[in-house]
Parts: sequence; structure tokens; C-alpha cells
Amino acid sequence: MADPILHEDPRSGNCYKIKLTAALLGIGIEASQYDILAGETRTPEFLATVNANGRIPVLQIGERFLPESNAACWYLAEGSALVPRDRFDRADMLRWMFFEQYSHEPNIATLRFWLRFVGEANLSPQQKGQMMAKRIAGCEALALMDRHLASREWFVGDGVTLADIALFAYTHVAEEGGFGLDDYPAVGAWLSRLRSLPRFVAMD
Amino acid sequence: MADPILHEDPRSGNCYKIKLTAALLGIGIEASQYDILAGETRTPEFLATVNANGRIPVLQIGERFLPESNAACWYLAEGSALVPRDRFDRADMLRWMFFEQYSHEPNIATLRFWLRFVGEANLSPQQKGQMMAKRIAGCEALALMDRHLASREWFVGDGVTLADIALFAYTHVAEEGGFGLDDYPAVGAWLSRLRSLPRFVAMD
Repeated sequence: MADPILHEDPRSGNCYKIKLTAALLGIGIEASQYDILAGETRTPEFLATVNANGRIPVLQIGERFLPESNAACWYLAEGSALVPRDRFDRADMLRWMFFEQYSHEPNIATLRFWLRFVGEANLSPQQKGQMMAKRIAGCEALALMDRHLASREWFVGDGVTLADIALFAYTHVAEEGGFGLDDYPAVGAWLSRLRSLPRFVAMD
Repeated sequence: MADPILHEDPRSGNCYKIKLTAALLGIGIEASQYDILAGETRTPEFLATVNANGRIPVLQIGERFLPESNAACWYLAEGSALVPRDRFDRADMLRWMFFEQYSHEPNIATLRFWLRFVGEANLSPQQKGQMMAKRIAGCEALALMDRHLASREWFVGDGVTLADIALFAYTHVAEEGGFGLDDYPAVGAWLSRLRSLPRFVAMD
């Protein structure tokens, strides 16, 4: 079967999750790149064929399209060592992946996107009005992660899982969103452990 | 083994997802109730033992605690008919569950919570400033669902899955958040199909 095709913008941590999962598993991935800032994921063609939601990443498997980064990671990794064998642990891994999408990404990734790619001067008044709340909620997410990692090497069980990959993607570039990682030493040690994995690939 | 214990506030659609999953599967659940508005999920005891994130629902299995509603649904339903057997479909089910937590719940559930339980007069200026964006994003989520359901009975494959349960929870009470469901006829038909399932239980 042909390699899966990743419809992506290389600046997106959500896309990077999927590339990191594939790299750690030794799975080949073909890339199809779009510029989010130029609106390339909102064209009628993209909406009609790739994702009606107008978002990347989307993982294409043959003729089928799978949006949502964490679902794509699950597709690639199911049955591998990146998904725990224990039933509770498997659900607990998904727990951290839902936490990532609900409590981490909308705060840390959004501030990074606004500050690094859009530019603070270009933000709308409404976006500016949300910055403080996102700053506080992002710090709460990092503090929760730090407490969890204080006594363990990985988020779930004894080895690296998709929970670590999902949370690594935007945590390791959180400083681009103005988050100081020095306040979270257990997070810093965990980032180093993840970077030391065989077959680790850096974000573009 | 003893029944799982659901730490919940019955007004929460996220808690209802887990009760509906358990009901459809014929699994017994014991309830431990908290009043979110009275701060009962932010007590030192709750944070130390149930969930450091201060949120419900949390599903307790023996001595282990599983936060995040969709992860708890997964724990209960894995291996059942509510999770597709096909690998792509299984990932696609998770795709809709991540969509629910990222694009649906923060808009539709939050507006319902603000308008029905907090009261518009009690909202902070910052919350009021977010209402319009949440209204627009919530309508986009409903429109996407409506287009998807226009040609199919369930979100994934040929039968009801956790994707339907996760999306039903806050869609069926979206009018309490000021969303008119008459504009989304395929969503309305799908809500009726879900309510007709054997062992369906209504939200409290």
C-alpha cells in the first residue's frame, strides 16, 4: 500500500505530532504542504476534498481523509508500543490527549501562533482581550504536567506513548508563546527524555 | 469487581456522555455528585484524590481515577459494538470525539453553561466579549455536523458509536445555549434516531 499522505503546514505542532509518531514507528509519510496564513486550507477545493472543517493536519489513507491530529496519531500507532497494552492505561493515554486538545493547545499553541506568526500588533481587540486568560490557563496546564511528571518519566505507564508525543508538540515550543519553561523542571527533564528517543525527529 | 464510580455534576453533558454509554452497554455505574457552581470540585480533597485538574467527570475504576469524558467513554466501550471494528473507522470515531472537545464543547456547552446556569447578567466583561465568537464557532460546528449527516445515519460507519454519544450530549441541549436547531434538519433527525435506541436514557 502507498504511504499515507499528510496534508500539513510545517509550522503547525499538530502536524508535527503525526510526523513524530510516524518517525518513531519507522512509518513512511508523504507530505502535501499548505500555507495556513495564506488561506490555502480554506479554498473550495480543500474544503470539498480534504477537510470540510478547513483545518490541517489531515492524514490521507488511500482515498479516505482523517482530520484531527490525535486521531491520526492513533491510526498510525494502534497496536504498536506507543499505545499501552493495559486497558486502563490505554484510556488514560487518551485522557491526556483530550487534555491536550482541551486545556493545552487552545492556550499554548494559540498564543504561540498569535505571537510568533500573526504578530501582536496584528491581533484583533478580541484576540488581545483573550491573551491574559490563555496565559493563565496555559500556565495551569504546564503546572499540572509538571506535578504529574515530578514522580514519573512518562505520562502513562513505564514508557513513551502517544500522550507524550501529543503533549511534546506544543510544549517544546511554548517559549515562542511567551511561556517560560524554567518554572517547570520536571517538564524540562521530560522534554529531554523525549528528544533522546531513537528515531526522534525535530520539528521543521 | 465493583461498579465504576462516576464523579459528576448531573447538569454536565460531559458527565451524561458516560452515563449514556454505560446505559447503552448495560453497565452499572455508581454516582458521586458534586455541585460545580458551589466549587465542590475545587476543594483540596477533590484536587488531591479525584482530579488535580479540578474538573468533572472523573470515572473511578477501583483505586484509579480517569478524567476526561471521552476517555471514560472509551474505557467503558472498548471492544463493544459502540467502537467500530475497522481500523480507519475506529480512528475516525476518535476524530469526531476530538472535534467535539475542540470545536463543539468549548462553544456550545460553554454558552449553555453561561446562559442557563451562570446567567448573562453575572458574566464577566471578558466572558461577554467571547460570546459572539463562541456563537459563530458553535454554528459552524452544527453546520458541519448537518452536512455530514445529510447523507448518513450515524457519524461513522453504519451504526451508533461513541462519536454519536459524545456529540449528542451537548447538541441535544444546544437550545439552552441559544442555538436554534431548526436550521440543522439532519442533526434533528439524528437526535431522534439516537433517542430511539434501546436502553437510551435521558439527561437528568
